[in-house]
Amino acid sequence: MSRFEWPVRVYIEDTDAGGIVYYVNYLKYMERARTEFFRKFDSGGNYIADDKSMFVVHSLNSQYLKPAKLDDTLIATVKVIKYGKANISMEQNIYRQRDVDEQSTGSEIEAVGELLCRGEVKIACVDRRMIKPRRMPLELLAGLKDL
Amino acid sequence: MSRFEWPVRVYIEDTDAGGIVYYVNYLKYMERARTEFFRKFDSGGNYIADDKSMFVVHSLNSQYLKPAKLDDTLIATVKVIKYGKANISMEQNIYRQRDVDEQSTGSEIEAVGELLCRGEVKIACVDRRMIKPRRMPLELLAGLKDL
Amino acid sequence: MSRFEWPVRVYIEDTDAGGIVYYVNYLKYMERARTEFFRKFDSGGNYIADDKSMFVVHSLNSQYLKPAKLDDTLIATVKVIKYGKANISMEQNIYRQRDVDEQSTGSEIEAVGELLCRGEVKIACVDRRMIKPRRMPLELLAGLKDL
Amino acid sequence: MSRFEWPVRVYIEDTDAGGIVYYVNYLKYMERARTEFFRKFDSGGNYIADDKSMFVVHSLNSQYLKPAKLDDTLIATVKVIKYGKANISMEQNIYRQRDVDEQSTGSEIEAVGELLCRGEVKIACVDRRMIKPRRMPLELLAGLKDL
Repeated sequence: MSRFEWPVRVYIEDTDAGGIVYYVNYLKYMERARTEFFRKFDSGGNYIADDKSMFVVHSLNSQYLKPAKLDDTLIATVKVIKYGKANISMEQNIYRQRDVDEQSTGSEIEAVGELLCRGEVKIACVDRRMIKPRRMPLELLAGLKDL
Repeated sequence: MSRFEWPVRVYIEDTDAGGIVYYVNYLKYMERARTEFFRKFDSGGNYIADDKSMFVVHSLNSQYLKPAKLDDTLIATVKVIKYGKANISMEQNIYRQRDVDEQSTGSEIEAVGELLCRGEVKIACVDRRMIKPRRMPLELLAGLKDL
Repeated sequence: MSRFEWPVRVYIEDTDAGGIVYYVNYLKYMERARTEFFRKFDSGGNYIADDKSMFVVHSLNSQYLKPAKLDDTLIATVKVIKYGKANISMEQNIYRQRDVDEQSTGSEIEAVGELLCRGEVKIACVDRRMIKPRRMPLELLAGLKDL
Repeated sequence: MSRFEWPVRVYIEDTDAGGIVYYVNYLKYMERARTEFFRKFDSGGNYIADDKSMFVVHSLNSQYLKPAKLDDTLIATVKVIKYGKANISMEQNIYRQRDVDEQSTGSEIEAVGELLCRGEVKIACVDRRMIKPRRMPLELLAGLKDL
């Protein structure tokens, strides 16, 4: 199963007084990548949230290995690990993009850059009003099967 | 017309890589103060947003005089300048709270502390679905008259 | 070992278009509680970050059980599970505070309210410039021993 | 003097319980556009913030005309109005990008889309440690002259 990659630039809004990216913001980057990943299956709507249903985060775990800094270009990835009718588990990592003039060494990870943050996120589709589990849109389920 | 004051602590989430409070966060502090100011008139609901109507910011202007830093205790103020049936204009400032052991000199501003950010915010009551102007709740209007 | 509790009010800044608290913001609430927990051991400084060292998040995992909503009063908790010379592991949960007029039933959890989010966070003390592991301040270490 | 334009996608992190973009986030979008505008003059560094100096917001005023919603593609603009040795005043607007299949009518504004937020921002270059005014980097000043 292939991996989806989404580039993210670090702006001053993302940093904290430690001079590095505020750690909760990596989770925002991961969600941007999920949103763009879902957009691929989408025929005009938005699978993250529509009038009837939306995805909420069920659980997550993450390890912070190295800090990102102002102005870095990062890559947020999405790889579906497992899914059911109402939930999807994804591996989501954040890499610092290697400079274009750095020599590539060919391994998959190094092709993207230095691993900064490793994450695993399980999201659940819920009814928008009741916030109760609900089957995800069929087109999305079909899209996941085709991966 | 008296002025409402609301204390705010600066946490790491509020700062940026400049080592100071990220400037847009002062606007969040101002909104917290508005929310708490409104709560005073409230008999169990929330005037900032309920099922039918909500307040949105119509316009604002602000001047940043001195930076706040991690761990500072700030005071966000609310003073109603003008209001109509569907909008309210407020002066909203941010002060750094003086240390309890600093000698007070008696003027109004110094009683609060050092002025960091001066703001003027006009908010408008809108219909929640249409995002069109709508008269604010009568209890709130009555509360403003009584100020 | 006793548990530290810190109250948090939900403002409009904390919510998202789902009408609930944006899930990454629970992590901000947990950090506010950690900061206040540390302040107890502190003789005038700030253990979260000073000129030489700061704590960064090493890893976290969290489960989202029920959503918090605008205007809720939450309780963020801190309970130290384990610590070394340069890191601390804590259980950190978020509860919705029970209304004062709800009848208390006596169990520990119900005394606080409904559990919304369960978290476990490991933080590491690092050198501020090098972002390399560094022993935490001795007063803090002593404070943890006394818990 | 020409206008710089920078595209911004609205993600769930940007919205609030009103179902629209949280108004302070427009200011983040404006800053992203300023950062990218500055990058054009830049020979490898970052004019927004380097080791010695950084830009801080001196003052701003903004009017919110129409709300942006989840998934909108916005355009944040930068147009320098005036500058001195240590400060720059810019007009910064936010537009909702017109759909590619909407018919263009040719006027400048309509070529971008619907105006949602109008802003004017004055930024000042300061010494990073002292947070005191400081002349901006000469290359940037030269770049502004060439506009």
